[in-house]
Amino acid sequence: MTKHKEQNCHNTYTDWAVIETQFDPTQLHYKETVFTVGNGYLGTRGSFEEGYLGAMGATLIHGVYDDVPVVHTELANCPDWLPLVVIINGDRFRLDQGEILSYRRQLDVRRGVLSRDVRWRSESGYTVDIHLERFASLVDQHVLALRCQVTALNFEGKVEIQASINGYPDNQGVMHWEWLNQGDVTTDEGAHAAWIHLRTRNTGIELGMATRVTVSDANASVRVSGCQGYPSLAATFPVQSGQTVTLEKLVTVFTSREEKAPAQAAVDKIKQQPNYATLLSAQEAAWEEVWQSSDVVIEGDIKAQLAIRYNLFQLLISAPRHDDTVSIPAKTLSGFAYRGHVFWDTEIFIQPFLIFTQPDLARNLLTYRYHTLNGARRKAKDSGYKGAMFAWESAGTGDEVTPRWVPPADDSEELVRIWCGDRELHINTDVAYAVWQYWQATGDDAWMRDYGAELVLDTAVYWGSRVEWNPKQEHYEIREVIGTDEYHEHVSNNTFTNRMVQWHLEKALVVLDWLHKQYPEQAATLEGKLLVTLERQARWRDIISNIWIPYDPETGIIEQCEGFFKLEDINLADYEPRTKSMQTILGIEGASKRQVLKQPDVLMLLYLLRETPGIFSDLRTLQANWDYYAPRTDITYGSSLGPAIHAALASYLNQPEEAYERFMQAALVDLEDTRRNAKEGIHAASAGGVWQALVFGFAGIRINDTYPQAKPHLPKGWTRLKFKLQWRGEWYEFDLRSEEVKEELGQMEDNTNGKSAEHKPEIQGVIFDLDGVLTETAEYHYRGWQRLADEEGIPFNREANEAMRGLSRRDSLLLMLNGQSRTEEQLEEMMERKNRYYLEFIKDVSPADLLPGAVELLDELRAAGIKVGIGSASKNAQEVIQRLGISDRVDTISDGYSVTRSKPAPDLFLHAAEQLGLAPEHCVVVEDAASGVEAALAAGMLAVGLGPVERVGVAHVVLPSLEGVQWADLLAKLSHVERSVHVQVR
Amino acid sequence: MTKHKEQNCHNTYTDWAVIETQFDPTQLHYKETVFTVGNGYLGTRGSFEEGYLGAMGATLIHGVYDDVPVVHTELANCPDWLPLVVIINGDRFRLDQGEILSYRRQLDVRRGVLSRDVRWRSESGYTVDIHLERFASLVDQHVLALRCQVTALNFEGKVEIQASINGYPDNQGVMHWEWLNQGDVTTDEGAHAAWIHLRTRNTGIELGMATRVTVSDANASVRVSGCQGYPSLAATFPVQSGQTVTLEKLVTVFTSREEKAPAQAAVDKIKQQPNYATLLSAQEAAWEEVWQSSDVVIEGDIKAQLAIRYNLFQLLISAPRHDDTVSIPAKTLSGFAYRGHVFWDTEIFIQPFLIFTQPDLARNLLTYRYHTLNGARRKAKDSGYKGAMFAWESAGTGDEVTPRWVPPADDSEELVRIWCGDRELHINTDVAYAVWQYWQATGDDAWMRDYGAELVLDTAVYWGSRVEWNPKQEHYEIREVIGTDEYHEHVSNNTFTNRMVQWHLEKALVVLDWLHKQYPEQAATLEGKLLVTLERQARWRDIISNIWIPYDPETGIIEQCEGFFKLEDINLADYEPRTKSMQTILGIEGASKRQVLKQPDVLMLLYLLRETPGIFSDLRTLQANWDYYAPRTDITYGSSLGPAIHAALASYLNQPEEAYERFMQAALVDLEDTRRNAKEGIHAASAGGVWQALVFGFAGIRINDTYPQAKPHLPKGWTRLKFKLQWRGEWYEFDLRSEEVKEELGQMEDNTNGKSAEHKPEIQGVIFDLDGVLTETAEYHYRGWQRLADEEGIPFNREANEAMRGLSRRDSLLLMLNGQSRTEEQLEEMMERKNRYYLEFIKDVSPADLLPGAVELLDELRAAGIKVGIGSASKNAQEVIQRLGISDRVDTISDGYSVTRSKPAPDLFLHAAEQLGLAPEHCVVVEDAASGVEAALAAGMLAVGLGPVERVGVAHVVLPSLEGVQWADLLAKLSHVERSVHVQVR
Repeated sequence: MTKHKEQNCHNTYTDWAVIETQFDPTQLHYKETVFTVGNGYLGTRGSFEEGYLGAMGATLIHGVYDDVPVVHTELANCPDWLPLVVIINGDRFRLDQGEILSYRRQLDVRRGVLSRDVRWRSESGYTVDIHLERFASLVDQHVLALRCQVTALNFEGKVEIQASINGYPDNQGVMHWEWLNQGDVTTDEGAHAAWIHLRTRNTGIELGMATRVTVSDANASVRVSGCQGYPSLAATFPVQSGQTVTLEKLVTVFTSREEKAPAQAAVDKIKQQPNYATLLSAQEAAWEEVWQSSDVVIEGDIKAQLAIRYNLFQLLISAPRHDDTVSIPAKTLSGFAYRGHVFWDTEIFIQPFLIFTQPDLARNLLTYRYHTLNGARRKAKDSGYKGAMFAWESAGTGDEVTPRWVPPADDSEELVRIWCGDRELHINTDVAYAVWQYWQATGDDAWMRDYGAELVLDTAVYWGSRVEWNPKQEHYEIREVIGTDEYHEHVSNNTFTNRMVQWHLEKALVVLDWLHKQYPEQAATLEGKLLVTLERQARWRDIISNIWIPYDPETGIIEQCEGFFKLEDINLADYEPRTKSMQTILGIEGASKRQVLKQPDVLMLLYLLRETPGIFSDLRTLQANWDYYAPRTDITYGSSLGPAIHAALASYLNQPEEAYERFMQAALVDLEDTRRNAKEGIHAASAGGVWQALVFGFAGIRINDTYPQAKPHLPKGWTRLKFKLQWRGEWYEFDLRSEEVKEELGQMEDNTNGKSAEHKPEIQGVIFDLDGVLTETAEYHYRGWQRLADEEGIPFNREANEAMRGLSRRDSLLLMLNGQSRTEEQLEEMMERKNRYYLEFIKDVSPADLLPGAVELLDELRAAGIKVGIGSASKNAQEVIQRLGISDRVDTISDGYSVTRSKPAPDLFLHAAEQLGLAPEHCVVVEDAASGVEAALAAGMLAVGLGPVERVGVAHVVLPSLEGVQWADLLAKLSHVERSVHVQVR
Repeated sequence: MTKHKEQNCHNTYTDWAVIETQFDPTQLHYKETVFTVGNGYLGTRGSFEEGYLGAMGATLIHGVYDDVPVVHTELANCPDWLPLVVIINGDRFRLDQGEILSYRRQLDVRRGVLSRDVRWRSESGYTVDIHLERFASLVDQHVLALRCQVTALNFEGKVEIQASINGYPDNQGVMHWEWLNQGDVTTDEGAHAAWIHLRTRNTGIELGMATRVTVSDANASVRVSGCQGYPSLAATFPVQSGQTVTLEKLVTVFTSREEKAPAQAAVDKIKQQPNYATLLSAQEAAWEEVWQSSDVVIEGDIKAQLAIRYNLFQLLISAPRHDDTVSIPAKTLSGFAYRGHVFWDTEIFIQPFLIFTQPDLARNLLTYRYHTLNGARRKAKDSGYKGAMFAWESAGTGDEVTPRWVPPADDSEELVRIWCGDRELHINTDVAYAVWQYWQATGDDAWMRDYGAELVLDTAVYWGSRVEWNPKQEHYEIREVIGTDEYHEHVSNNTFTNRMVQWHLEKALVVLDWLHKQYPEQAATLEGKLLVTLERQARWRDIISNIWIPYDPETGIIEQCEGFFKLEDINLADYEPRTKSMQTILGIEGASKRQVLKQPDVLMLLYLLRETPGIFSDLRTLQANWDYYAPRTDITYGSSLGPAIHAALASYLNQPEEAYERFMQAALVDLEDTRRNAKEGIHAASAGGVWQALVFGFAGIRINDTYPQAKPHLPKGWTRLKFKLQWRGEWYEFDLRSEEVKEELGQMEDNTNGKSAEHKPEIQGVIFDLDGVLTETAEYHYRGWQRLADEEGIPFNREANEAMRGLSRRDSLLLMLNGQSRTEEQLEEMMERKNRYYLEFIKDVSPADLLPGAVELLDELRAAGIKVGIGSASKNAQEVIQRLGISDRVDTISDGYSVTRSKPAPDLFLHAAEQLGLAPEHCVVVEDAASGVEAALAAGMLAVGLGPVERVGVAHVVLPSLEGVQWADLLAKLSHVERSVHVQVR
C-alpha cells in the first residue's frame, strides 16, 4: 500500500484555517480550488483579485447551464467579480513582477472568509502591505463582499484601485455569454455603482451583476470607467508613507432563474447594502449557526481536525439553500471537471452528512431529483423501457448528459466511447436509497408522500421492465451493465446492481403499502399515473425472490459479476511504485480482462447494506470479501470515491492503521492535492465520504433501537471526537474520548467527586515563542542586523543583538540606531533591507535547526491533547515553522501580522489563546526573552522562562532550555505554582 | 434545374461597389462575410464598429493557429480592432435602439474601403449623421485605419467617442488568448495611443496591437481609459447643431510569427503613422496597381461585372503577400468554417487566377506546400507508406488536421466519421498539378529547381508505394479512396485519382529528366535524399503503363470508380423542389449507394486534362460524360465547388444558357447568399472557379502554340469581356466583344477608316434623374411636404410643390417657408419630419410605380452596352431604386449623399459620370426639372428634358415623357445636336 503523498504544499493548518505561507506559481490552479468560497448559490475559486498569468478563475452559479458540444451542457463560468487592479505610483501590483517580501493567504472556514497579506515591492521600489479579504454572503446569497487595504510603507504619492466586473469569463477557453447592456448609477449616499447584463448564448439565461465601491478616505475620488463587457470603478488615493487606504467592493448578482429582470434586481440590491463590516458581522453569525449543527471536533490531530472542517465547509457552500431544482455537482461549484454534472456522488456520498446535520438542504437535493423525473422518463423510454431511469450524469433537465465519446488520454486519435450513460444503471437505486435514508432519518412523511414515493415507485417501474427472465438458469438477471467498479464496462449480473435492485423493489413495496395505509388517495393517484398495477407488483415480488445474487456460503465471498472470478488475477504490488491508475497502465481492454477494481463494488454494497439484516451485513461476510477485494482495488489511483469507504470498512474490521491511512488519503485529497487533480475542483464525494468514515466508521454510529448509538474506534492519538446528529427531529450529541483520555478523566473524576462532564484539565494549551525557544533563528536575525549595521556604519555586535531579544523589528532598529535620527522612509527601507537579508539567510533553515528537546516536547503535548500555539513577534514565523517541518504539530500561529502592540504587551499571547479557543488562565507560555515573559504574565498566563534567571527569572518556572524536558515533569512543576504569584519575584 | 435563389439581400451593384441600402438584422452574419476587408495578412469581417447583439465579428491573421479539440487547430480570432462607442449627449449609438432614419453601407472593391452612412435618432431625440470608413492597408500589412465622422443635426451638447481594442475575441465561443500586458503611450505629436500584448493559450503565438486616436477639433479632449484586456481611448467633443466632428483611429498589429517583440513593434509602428487621408491615398494607389493586372471588365451585365470583381477582391485580400509559410484557407480569412484549414480548393480552384495575374502570390502559396512537406512525410509514414502525402486539411505544420469525428447534422447522438483525412488522396496530385501549372505559366526554373521538384518527386514516391498490383486483373490499382465526389467514401479505383496519379508520375519523370539536364547536382541531391532510385523510376513507368483507367471506347463514358454503374440509378428531378443536399435527403449510406454526385468527378478530371492531348481532352468524350454525369450531379446543394466547373464545361459544349446559370450561381454564392451559408465565410474555391469559368470557359483561353489564345463564347447580353494574362513573363490583354458589338464596331470601323482600336461611340452613358423621370415619387414628396405644411400651418399646394422640382430638401423647405424665419434646429427637425413622412409613403413603392417606357429604355440601353447612372438629389434614391426593382439595370447611383452642392450645380452628374468611368461629353442626362437640365448643361453633357418646353426647353432634346421612346430614335436625335449649342436657347 502506498502512503498518501507528502508534498510541500506550503500549507499550515490550525483548528479553523488553512494557511498558505508562500506563493508558488506551480500550485496556482490547485490552490484556486482549495481557496474556493461560496454560499450555496455560487462558488468562486480562489484566484487572485489582481489576476495572474494562466489563472483559471471561476464563479459558478447553480443551474446556470449552457450548451457545449460533446458533453452536452456545462455550468457556464459567470462574470468574474474579483478584479482589482492596484496601481502604486504607476506600478501595477502583480505577483509576477516586483518582489514579494512576505505572503500569507488564509481561508477561515469558521467564517467563510478568504484573506491575503502581501508585502510587495514594486519595480520602482515602492513597498506596500496589501490586505485583501473576500466572502460570499451566507445571509443573502446574492451578495459578495471584498475589502482591500493598502499601506504605503516607504513612499508618498498616489494609489489607484480599479474595481471591475469581468464580463468575459470562459470555461477553459469556451465562452458562454453575450453582452446585452451595462451602465452605472449613483446610490442615495453618493457611492458609485456599475452594472452589467449578459445572457448565455444557447440557453438564454440572463445574468445581472452590479458592483459598488466605497472608500473611507475623504481625499480619495471615485470615478466610473470601464469598457464594453468590463464595467469598472476607479478610486484614486493620495497617500503618505505609513498611511493605509481602504476600498470596499460589494457585488450583487441575480440570474433570470430567480428574477425576470436580473440586472435591475442587482442594481436595486446593491443600493441597499450596508458597509463591509456590517455584512461581515452578519456572515460570522450565520456561519456560527451552521457550525452549531455540522461541526466535528477532533482533538489530538490538528491536521485531521482542519481537514474534516475543510471538507464539510466545501460541502456546506455547495448545497443549494433556496433552490430545489439544482443539486451538488461532482466537483461542487469549484472547478470545471465533469462540467457541473450531478452523479451518484451526491446521493450516496454527500447526502448522509446533510441528512443527519442539515436535513433541509438534503431535502432540496432530493427534490431536484423529483423535478428531473421527466428527463429520467425520457431516458427510460429512449432505451425501450418503462418508468424512470435517472441520468448517470444529470444537469438542468435530468436528461442524460454523459458524453458518449471523449478524446483519449494519450495522443492517439481515436475517441473513447463512454458507456456509463447507457449502462451504469445503479444510479437509479442510489437515488431511491437516498430517499429512503432521508425519510428514515427525518420522518418527513409529507415530503415522502408528495415527492419521494413517486420517485421510488417510478424508478421501480423501470426495474420491472429492465430485469430479464433467464429461462435456462431460471432466475432473473440484468445483462449489459456497469457496476460501481467502472473498470468493467460490459458485464452482466453485477451483484451490486442486482442486490440493490432487489432492495429497491422491496422498499418500493414498503412505500406503496405505507401510502395505502396513510394516504390512500395519493396511493391511488400514483398507481394510476405510474401504472403500478397489481400485475407489476406481483412481478416485483417475483424478481425480489428470484433475482440472481451469487454468494458462496462456504467462503462467504460474493462474485462481483458473472464470470469475474474467471478473469485473469492480478497482484497490484507487482506494479508498485506507480503514479497512474491501473486502467492507464493496462489500457481499457487490459483492465477489463483482469480482476482489478477501480473502486469498491461488492464492498460498496456491503457498506450500503451494513444495517440491513441478512448475510450481507454479517461481519464475517465483510471480512471475507475485504480480504478478497481490498488487495485487488486500485485505491490509490482508481476512483477518489474509494478511500473513504475503505476507511469506514477497515474501521469496522478493527484495522485502525489502514482505516486512518485511507481516511487521511480522502481527507487531504484537495488540501494536499494527493491525486494531483485538485485543480479540477473539490472532490465532493470524497468530502462526504470523509464524514461517513468518521461518523459511521471511527465513531461507529448505528441506528439501534430507533436512535443513533456510537461504538467508537478512534485512530491512535485522537483524544476526542465530537459531533451532533439529528434523528427524527431530535439532536444527539456525541462526545467520544479515546480509552487513554477516558481513563485519565476517570481518575480525575475520582478526584473531583464525579463532576466529569464539567471537568477541564487546568492547562490546555502551550504557547511557544519561536526564536530562541524552538529554534535559533536569533542567529539569522543577528546576521541580518549585523550586515545592515555594517552597511550603515553603525557599531553593532552580538551583545547589542542580545538586547533585541523579543523586540519588534522597529524597536530593534531604533535600539540599534541608539538615538540617531532617520526619516520614516529611511527606517522602513532599513527594516526591509534587514528583513531581506534575514529571509535570504533563513532559506537554509531546516528541521536540523530545531533546538534540542523541542520536537519531543511537541509530540508529548500532542499525545496529551494539549493544544500548541506559536506566539512570535516575527513576521516570518509561518515560513520558519514550515521550514522546521513542525507545521502539523502546531495548532495556531500568532505572528507579527496578528496584533499591533508587540511584547511586552500581552496582545500576541492573548491572540494565540483566542485562536486556540482557550481562556488565558489555561495557557502556558514558553519564552526566552524578558519582554516575552512579561507579556505572558500580563496576559494572565503561566510562564516558563528559558535561559538565565537574570533574563527570565520572573517566569513561574525557569529552565535552561527545552533539552530533556518532559511534559509530565513540567506539568508537575507548573501545578505547584501559586497562581496568585503573578508578580515579579526577583 | 433550379434557378439560383433570388432573395431580397438589399444589395445594389455598381461597377465597383456592393451597396447595402437597408439594415436587416436577419442578414447580420451573412453581410459580415460579404463586407470583409483585408490585405493578405489579415481579414476582418464586416461587423459594426458599435457592435450588435449576436454579432460574429472576426479578425483572422494568416498562420495564427491555436489548438482546439476534435478539429485539431484553427485560426484564432484575433483582438477586434473595430470597437467605437459613440455617445450622443449620453445616448449610446446602437442600431437596435433609437431610430434608423437612413442607412447605406458600401464596399468599394476598387480601393478596398468599407464605408457606412447612417442617419440615426437617439431615444432622447438627438439626430446625427454618422459616417464610418475602414480599410486594411495594402501598402503596409500591419496597418489598419478607421475614420468616424459625426454630424449633430438637431442639438448642441457633447459627443463622446470611445475607440478600443477588444482583447476578448472568441471563435464562436472558444477563446484562444491569454492576456500578457497592456499600456499606453503618447506620440511625439502628443497623440494618445494604447496597446495590448496577448498570447495564444496553446501554441504560444504572441500578438501585439496598438491603436492611436487623433481628432482635428481643438476643443476636443482625448484621454486614456480602458480595462484589463480592453485598452481604450476616449475623445470628447463639444458640438453645435450642424457641426461635424471627426475621429481617426489607426491600428497596428504584429505577431511573434514576424517580430520577436510584437507589442513593441506595434507601438513603434503606430508612432510612425501619418494621418488617415495620407494612408488612404497610398491605399488607393496600391489597389490601382493590383487591379492593373487582375481586373476583369464585363460590359452589358452590371451584376456579373460587380460579382467577378467582388470575387477577385476577396481572393486578392486573402493571398499572403509577404509570407510563404501560409496559404489561403477554404473560407479565406473571412469566417470560421473549416477552421482556417487549407484544402485542394487553393491549388485547383484559386491558383489559376493567381498564376496568370499575380504569379508572386501563386508562388507564395506553393512554397507553403513545400514548407509543409515534413508534415506530409509524417502522414505518409503514419499510414505505412513512403514519400510525402499532403494533408487533406492542412494548417501550420502540414500534418493532417481533418477531424476524424464530427457531430452529426441532425440531433442524433452518434458522431460521424470523416474519412477524407484517411482516404481523399487526390490532394497529392492536386498540389503537383498546381506546381506544374505554375512552372509552365511562369517558366520559373529557379523555383522549380529549389522547391517544386522536391515536392513533385516526393509525392510521386508516395504514389509508388501506395499503388497496388492486382495479379488477378493484371493491372495497378488504388483501393479504398475517396474521389472528388465525396458522396462515395469507400471506393476503389476512382478514375479521377488513378488517372491523375498516372499524370503525376509522368510529370515526375519529366521533372527528373529536366533536372538531370539542367541541374545535375540538384538531381543527384534529390535522388539521394528522396531515394528516387532507378528501381523506383522503373516502377513509376510500369504504373503509368498499367494502372487501370476504365473507359468505354464505344460510348466514351468513363466509370467514376469500380462498380459505380452497378449502383442504383437516380433521377434528381424526382426530388425537386428541394433545399437540401442529396446526402442530407438520402443519408450518408443512402447517397453512397446511388449514382448521385456531390460535385464533378469524371468531369473534373476532363476539365483538368482539357489541354492534355489524348481521348480525355476530346470534346466528344466530354459531351458523352457530361450527358451522363451532369444530370446526376447535385449541382445546387452539393459542393459549392461544382457550379463554376460546370459553367466552364457547358461553355465548351456550347450550352451558353446552362453556362451562364452555373456561372452566376457560383459568382453570387456569397454576394446573394444563394446557399444560405455565406455567414460561415467566403467560398474561396467558388471565387477562383468563377475566374476560370470566365477565362477558360467564356473567353475560351487555351495555351496553343506556346501562348494563350481566346476562343470566346460570351453569354447573351455581354458586349465585352476584357482581362489580362501573364504568360512566361509577358502580358497578354484580351478585349473580347460579342458578335453584335463586333459587327457594330465593324460598321463603325468602315466609317472611320479602320481606327477601331481607338474608336469609342460618342454616347457611352445615360444619367437619369429619378423623381419625375423614372418614377413619380414626386407625388410622395408632395404628400410629405403637404403634411408638414399642414402641421405647421403654412399654405401649400401642388403648385407650390411643382416649384420644388429638382431642389434639395433644404432648398425646398426654404421655398416652402417663403421667408419665414426658423432656427437651424427647427429647420433640421422639419426636414427630418418631412423625410420620415416621405419614407413612410414610399414603403409602398413597387415596380408598378415605374413610369411608362422607363424599364424598356433601360433594357435597350443595357443591350446596347450603354452605361446607366442615376443622378438624383434625393437621399433615398438607393431605396427607391431597390423598391422599383431596377437595381440590376443601373450601374451607379449618385444621390444626396454623393456631393455637397445640389443642382443646378453640375456636381451630381459629374459624380455619376466619374462613377461610370466616363468623360462628361460622353454622357446624356435625362431630366424633368429646370435646375436638373441646367446642371446637365453645366456639366458639359447632353440633356434630354421631359415635360413642357417652358420647364425643360433648354435641353438638347425635349420629350413629353419616356413612354414609347426608343434608344435608336433618341440616339439619332442626339447625334444631330450641335455640341457647341450648350447655351440657353429660349
